[in-house]
Amino acid sequence: MANEFNIDRNRLIETVKEQAAIGGTDGGGLHRLALSDEDKQVRDWFHEQMEAADLDVRIDEMGNMFGRRPGTDSDAAPVLLGSHLDSQPNGGIYDGALGVVGALEFVRTLDDQGIETKHPIEIVNWTNEEGSRFQPAMMASGVWAGVHDRDAMYAETDAEGNTLRAELERIGYRGSAPVGPQEEYEAYLELHVEQGPYLEEWGQSVGIVTDIVGFTWGELTFRGEPDHTGATPMHHRSDALVAAADVIVRLRRLAEDLGERTVATTGVVDATPNSINVIPGEVTFTWDARDPDDAVVEAAFQRVLAEAERAAEREGVDWEWEERMRAPSVKFADRCTETMADAAASLDYDYTDIVAGAGHDATHLAEVCDTGMVFAVSEGGKSHSEAEYTNWDDCYRAANVLANAALRVATGAA
Amino acid sequence: MANEFNIDRNRLIETVKEQAAIGGTDGGGLHRLALSDEDKQVRDWFHEQMEAADLDVRIDEMGNMFGRRPGTDSDAAPVLLGSHLDSQPNGGIYDGALGVVGALEFVRTLDDQGIETKHPIEIVNWTNEEGSRFQPAMMASGVWAGVHDRDAMYAETDAEGNTLRAELERIGYRGSAPVGPQEEYEAYLELHVEQGPYLEEWGQSVGIVTDIVGFTWGELTFRGEPDHTGATPMHHRSDALVAAADVIVRLRRLAEDLGERTVATTGVVDATPNSINVIPGEVTFTWDARDPDDAVVEAAFQRVLAEAERAAEREGVDWEWEERMRAPSVKFADRCTETMADAAASLDYDYTDIVAGAGHDATHLAEVCDTGMVFAVSEGGKSHSEAEYTNWDDCYRAANVLANAALRVATGAA
Repeated sequence: MANEFNIDRNRLIETVKEQAAIGGTDGGGLHRLALSDEDKQVRDWFHEQMEAADLDVRIDEMGNMFGRRPGTDSDAAPVLLGSHLDSQPNGGIYDGALGVVGALEFVRTLDDQGIETKHPIEIVNWTNEEGSRFQPAMMASGVWAGVHDRDAMYAETDAEGNTLRAELERIGYRGSAPVGPQEEYEAYLELHVEQGPYLEEWGQSVGIVTDIVGFTWGELTFRGEPDHTGATPMHHRSDALVAAADVIVRLRRLAEDLGERTVATTGVVDATPNSINVIPGEVTFTWDARDPDDAVVEAAFQRVLAEAERAAEREGVDWEWEERMRAPSVKFADRCTETMADAAASLDYDYTDIVAGAGHDATHLAEVCDTGMVFAVSEGGKSHSEAEYTNWDDCYRAANVLANAALRVATGAA
Repeated sequence: MANEFNIDRNRLIETVKEQAAIGGTDGGGLHRLALSDEDKQVRDWFHEQMEAADLDVRIDEMGNMFGRRPGTDSDAAPVLLGSHLDSQPNGGIYDGALGVVGALEFVRTLDDQGIETKHPIEIVNWTNEEGSRFQPAMMASGVWAGVHDRDAMYAETDAEGNTLRAELERIGYRGSAPVGPQEEYEAYLELHVEQGPYLEEWGQSVGIVTDIVGFTWGELTFRGEPDHTGATPMHHRSDALVAAADVIVRLRRLAEDLGERTVATTGVVDATPNSINVIPGEVTFTWDARDPDDAVVEAAFQRVLAEAERAAEREGVDWEWEERMRAPSVKFADRCTETMADAAASLDYDYTDIVAGAGHDATHLAEVCDTGMVFAVSEGGKSHSEAEYTNWDDCYRAANVLANAALRVATGAA
């Protein structure tokens, strides 16, 4: 069966382009922040596409959009496929969107070929995966999976002080369906771009995701003395920025020490008063450390604190820290990774197992049902920027793996 | 004569307190930015004080405020004394203001004692010494001395886009007198708080300033790749913040390498996009390096660029730099330092020579006439913060040295 089922390559490409035009940037990227006007536009567009495909559409209280295609067995649990349509600020056109379009293309192909499945199919666009306007990331799939509280998320605000709830209502996407599974789900399958360089480096066409790394996120604050840069001798200083810079540099080494797959980053740094002739009296900065092994994540966390303590002591600054988030690593169900691999093999693609370095909606879905992911190649590993790029062959291959794996699960063959 | 001439300690203290109430902060500091409403208030107050002291007041086109007391010799050049009444954001109550009040107290004491001087005396409040609202610092004394162009400075804007000229007019202090010396000046003498810890560490009451350090100010920008923090392996990164942090740490060492009096600081750092899960693609940060020896300043500047180049290469980021300002060191006239020292000796104060680590209006005045400065003790070396503190004895002693030195010059005794 497998080799006879192929999605429509041209339609897939055209549909990726259609969504990319909504919130597209001059630089060829996408600026479509969660619950912005552009997000409303792409949601309206997606709603139309689902209706055109005869799907039964429902919107839940978090704005998650579902479209259901019935199965032949009224007792069979639905198979869920999807990703997200929101983007990073000046992000890329594939991140999230390719997974939603891939899911849509799967049901369109089923219709084209007149295929009925035992299990119902649902496709989904999860609200606010990116977390760049409202934190945390993977928000609404987290509420759906019972990891986050709906009302707490409603109260989250963007930089202008708008609440998530108000913005959901403003764009007309606070739906009436309750958030969360109202029945058993057979499986959740997600296609996403890798956002890292491994598939390309390894010369592979498709990645079968076995795990998602665990991570620790947190914030450090150093407080020294905001003295005059000219009149204060070096031995008389408590320079919060020198201490912070020391930790930022050591974070890079820490990653190299701990493991081949460990990554550690400072993404945010804010100095006060941030004036050329005043020694920074206060500096706040973040850490983000990840590894497939939760024990290594814990070791990285301990090293961050140890380095911060040493730097603070050396510079004579006070310090405090807060861990904002700790996500354990996720291991996907063997059933899903094996089915994805079978699909890739039957299509005769080069494929390999891979560990995801970024969180995805699938992280939370793994709490609810058997979950799996397939990665498309990201050229140069670029993501969260306009330079993100996946060529059409790679888009097609990964979407075809998703479709073939979903077909196996939905027909009860896997 | 010297020991018989003493300013009025209580009046000095009361006048320092009076000015400190205008723009005073809850934390005991001063928030009186150049050309703000508070600056207008303190100018109005200073205007009244000068008129009450029978001084002939004039305001120049840069808002510099002068008050003149005639001399007995119509051909004698005036002796100028003063400093500035503007403050840093949440700065201290002594920085600048003590020098203006000390100058005022000198002419008041002359009146009390019925002393006439051969040379006219002028006291002055220079506009925008701090440079925290409008750059550069020491702006209007610089225009007066011919270092800066008046119209270029008029066009400078604050963070809200208000021009300096518009703000001068708004508060009614764009005067009609031309900016710059309209006659020869005999000397310029300035009292200021040290803003550093040396006098206190050395157990001295008064500092006779022999030099002002030279400095280089500039800005570096590193541009890497704004990739995903989770999905991008360490060896695949061009992290602009890691490169910047490396330079910031090395700036501290650079100062220790070059000389005992060298200081080097990063005061400003801005990362883009400044998001916890994006590798910083662009970081802009500043350098500020100072030394009494101009050759050491040049060496520091070259080291900053060399360190930046090495860090940029190591991290694979592009970089650019701009030197914003280079100020040569200033050596004050022997006549002034000797007269200040004579005054301190005749008053039986503990005094010592000292090099100023910060720029002052005297920096520019030294281009025009014989110039000297006296420093009051800054406890703990604190300045540019509400913690700035000089006890009343130290305020009095430094103001008394200023007055006695000014009297010597104004009477033709030095």
